[in-house]
Amino acid sequence: MCQPPAVGLSITLSVLAESADASAALVVPSSPVGSHTDIEAVRAFARECDVVTFDHEHVPAEVLAALEADGVILHPCPAALVFAQDKLAMRRRLTDIGIACPAWARVRDAASLQAFGDEVGWPVIVKTPRGGYDGKGARVAGSPDDVADWLSDAARDAAAGDGPHGGGPLVDGLLAEQKVDFVRELALLVVRSPSGQAGAWPVVETVQASGICTQVLAPAPRLDPQLAAVATAAGLRIAGELGVTGVMAVEMFEVRDPQTGDPAYLVNQLAMRPHNSGHWSIDGAVTSQFEQHLRAVLDLPLGDTSPRAPWTVMGNVLGGDYPQLYPTYRHLLARDPGLKIHLYGKNVRPGRKIGHVNVSGTDLDELRARAGHASDFLQGVITE
Amino acid sequence: MCQPPAVGLSITLSVLAESADASAALVVPSSPVGSHTDIEAVRAFARECDVVTFDHEHVPAEVLAALEADGVILHPCPAALVFAQDKLAMRRRLTDIGIACPAWARVRDAASLQAFGDEVGWPVIVKTPRGGYDGKGARVAGSPDDVADWLSDAARDAAAGDGPHGGGPLVDGLLAEQKVDFVRELALLVVRSPSGQAGAWPVVETVQASGICTQVLAPAPRLDPQLAAVATAAGLRIAGELGVTGVMAVEMFEVRDPQTGDPAYLVNQLAMRPHNSGHWSIDGAVTSQFEQHLRAVLDLPLGDTSPRAPWTVMGNVLGGDYPQLYPTYRHLLARDPGLKIHLYGKNVRPGRKIGHVNVSGTDLDELRARAGHASDFLQGVITE
Repeated sequence: MCQPPAVGLSITLSVLAESADASAALVVPSSPVGSHTDIEAVRAFARECDVVTFDHEHVPAEVLAALEADGVILHPCPAALVFAQDKLAMRRRLTDIGIACPAWARVRDAASLQAFGDEVGWPVIVKTPRGGYDGKGARVAGSPDDVADWLSDAARDAAAGDGPHGGGPLVDGLLAEQKVDFVRELALLVVRSPSGQAGAWPVVETVQASGICTQVLAPAPRLDPQLAAVATAAGLRIAGELGVTGVMAVEMFEVRDPQTGDPAYLVNQLAMRPHNSGHWSIDGAVTSQFEQHLRAVLDLPLGDTSPRAPWTVMGNVLGGDYPQLYPTYRHLLARDPGLKIHLYGKNVRPGRKIGHVNVSGTDLDELRARAGHASDFLQGVITE
Repeated sequence: MCQPPAVGLSITLSVLAESADASAALVVPSSPVGSHTDIEAVRAFARECDVVTFDHEHVPAEVLAALEADGVILHPCPAALVFAQDKLAMRRRLTDIGIACPAWARVRDAASLQAFGDEVGWPVIVKTPRGGYDGKGARVAGSPDDVADWLSDAARDAAAGDGPHGGGPLVDGLLAEQKVDFVRELALLVVRSPSGQAGAWPVVETVQASGICTQVLAPAPRLDPQLAAVATAAGLRIAGELGVTGVMAVEMFEVRDPQTGDPAYLVNQLAMRPHNSGHWSIDGAVTSQFEQHLRAVLDLPLGDTSPRAPWTVMGNVLGGDYPQLYPTYRHLLARDPGLKIHLYGKNVRPGRKIGHVNVSGTDLDELRARAGHASDFLQGVITE
């Protein structure tokens, strides 16, 4: 999705593609195939680039270190990226700089988890610090027994960590978090360039079903203006303090302050890349998150983040019963000429995010209905 | 410029590129190099495509005929395309179907040109029927002497045309047209799909300087609503009668009816492809001309042509004194965060169209000033 703005800006992309038929390889002429975990493949790729950036957080630390040692310009830099890779590191750092988070603790055994749960109330959320994505790597635990397997792995990794080869993925323990009684989920997209220019799009609402984001409403309806300002300031502060470069999504809970009852935010997690919660900006903002990410990592001046319309609704399209999307998509184009469909060229698998739709206008309810219909129709949930 | 919407629609483009560093080849993975005049190269290319379309009108008739004989699906089809290739054929056909054109005549010698000029008034415009582009192939003639060389070539080609090998490019003579005393130049962009669905964007004003379009104002300011309706109906009628598929630009003069003084149009010329006068739609319309052209040639349902903002101004960027655009473009991004810059990846040559800018908003004068500044700055006409 960076290729369309790259075409306009006359920026030449090169993608290290996981396979020759990866989505990005289908649309970017320079797409050598290689794994992001293969140090030599990544180093050879990076030698041909002016700047290297990422479309996921899973590049191993040793690969990043090798690139840094080679003098490759990385945005975001590894020192910032770690806070999107490691949830424990993120919680520590955000707490240090005074950003509101759910109550949390590092737990390495049943006793410490029991103590945390007894303090904040059961059930709690337990997360593996690294590799979680779309609900994987997170569990709701009613007692330490519900994560006994993870605690056992953590104990093993911690023991191994004292040896010469470091520990396994749970060497640092697990992250336990208070289960937040939230009003709704919000997301803030910010951007920061290496020279320090920063910007933010309006705070959006992310509508979730079964842990998957189904719609994004931009801007978040009926959002308290004071909360919008405070949350935006928090996002920009995180970007500055952590040295983030490029686009960062800050996923948040909207909550009520337990004392005053006023609307407040708690930061849920960070993603340092263009993010699903920002796809509305492709059609709904003067500068999309993908154009902005390119501008930021190249240290070009940033673009205007203003919305183009009063409301834009983004609907995720999940893989469903139709392996071939073309017939349904043709029907949708005919049914709604104002719909902007974005398909990713991925193979359809049930539940996989394979595209999204955007609709912009003045009537939020109508836009939500149109986006919802399109998502459901493409997935095969409805057939009319 | 079709590649960005193709990415979103998950349509795979392939481009027969004139060279490996052609603009399109830089951004489309499948870009075999070959000439549009090389029958075998074009045939081999077309065998790999579901549909073939064109980004200029200069594909020779014999190449088009070979593709048709191979059963290749061409949009627009050669029977329609000829009216964008041959200005005499266009004038005949538009006159036959009652579309308002400047007074015109086919002239094959000095006597017929003299008679035409004496009738409509000197000077007249004389055009070579084929190959004209941006003022090339057209002259203002104060007398037949001013096109004596063309008349001599036409006589030679007509004589050769009686032989076995047909004639040269002027075998059919020259097109003479009344020099129109116009109020301003307008353009109408229409689209038609093979199954007959059609649509039109708002009529725009094309601001010209020295025969080159410098700005497009969308929609045309203060346009008489009756004229807008009549001109739009004329454009859709042309598309239907000529069997046009894909996007067509109808360049028009706005004139005063000599009897009533009411605003009226005269068709200047046709282009059967996405056109410079429609570049505003990339950022200024719900569906851009490039997305719409793809939808049309694939016979997909057409998209909404509504503007996204009250006004969009497109400013052409011409090559100037700076061989490297990057430093100036960086300055512009900083100066105007709302500017949408589109560069074509072409080598900079003085006077060559190497990109364009779009700005949208509510204050037309301000938008014109911003677009004008950006064009002038990129060209090097101004340095602040």
